[in-house]
Amino acid sequence: MKRDQPTAFTIWFTGLSGAGKTTLSKAVLQDPETKGLRVCLLNAGDLRRKLFPDLRFSRSDREENVRRIGYLAGLLTANGVNTLVASMSPERAARDTVRQKLTHFLEVFVDSPIEICQQRDPVGLYRRFRQGEVSHISGLDDPYEAPLNPDVHCRTDLLSVEACTAQIVAAIMERLGP
Amino acid sequence: MKRDQPTAFTIWFTGLSGAGKTTLSKAVLQDPETKGLRVCLLNAGDLRRKLFPDLRFSRSDREENVRRIGYLAGLLTANGVNTLVASMSPERAARDTVRQKLTHFLEVFVDSPIEICQQRDPVGLYRRFRQGEVSHISGLDDPYEAPLNPDVHCRTDLLSVEACTAQIVAAIMERLGP
Repeated sequence: MKRDQPTAFTIWFTGLSGAGKTTLSKAVLQDPETKGLRVCLLNAGDLRRKLFPDLRFSRSDREENVRRIGYLAGLLTANGVNTLVASMSPERAARDTVRQKLTHFLEVFVDSPIEICQQRDPVGLYRRFRQGEVSHISGLDDPYEAPLNPDVHCRTDLLSVEACTAQIVAAIMERLGP
Repeated sequence: MKRDQPTAFTIWFTGLSGAGKTTLSKAVLQDPETKGLRVCLLNAGDLRRKLFPDLRFSRSDREENVRRIGYLAGLLTANGVNTLVASMSPERAARDTVRQKLTHFLEVFVDSPIEICQQRDPVGLYRRFRQGEVSHISGLDDPYEAPLNPDVHCRTDLLSVEACTAQIVAAIMERLGP
């Protein structure tokens, strides 16, 4: 509870719906290596419902969503809370803007081919798209701008959750660890 | 940076515009007694601009504003960050709802007669009201529902900033201190 010099990090999980962002962020939160740290997981879906109900899924609203989540991550990390963000955040420029504002920032590209993501379809997004109920879906009728130089690149179609988690935790400990 | 059992508190400063909420919350943040704690100050005006630009000043929007700030305070305190909130929050029910959701909660009633607040007018709210530019001003054409049983009652028209700060810090240390 000391007001020490904050050195908290932000780990930003970006990728298509179904790529595995939530799964991996929860796995990192539960990993024994991070258990000793003060870590908070921000789930973009929860935040939209609880804090940003005004935002929809237009490009400008998605960019604003990323900006606001970045503001929250800044608030938490400035107070010594390491922050995991699971957010599709398909616009590269919006992610880069957040990166510039946060001190210790790791971009994790959670990557899986869209076909695999569509099979997983954890929140039914792709099914609703096929049924014509939703549009502006990144990877389908809207672009997903993949990171050009992510700090960690997890191929969740090729590696297990455990292996991807180990990749991320190793990056945290190597680059940002206490 | 340990993920220890959080015991963080929320101090909620409520009162009219010009009563001294921002002044007192900053003074508590700077007080030598709280310097050793991890403390974050949430300013309602900043949050409206940065995170909740969709909210205006209708009764329902103000209640939603208080709910969202309470959600943020919950996020911070759950991660061990003591949180100071400076928010007019004129609706008693909205404040009470937040109080019920947060574990260690102190309500600070920052109290000054409306005439004194109008003389101070730190953000020009009362001037703009007189000029017909704004309405729904708590204490004038909208009610301010004063706390019935605040944890701390600061009469900022009678006591100095230092004396009020000492009242609040004493309450923190007595009731919620480490």
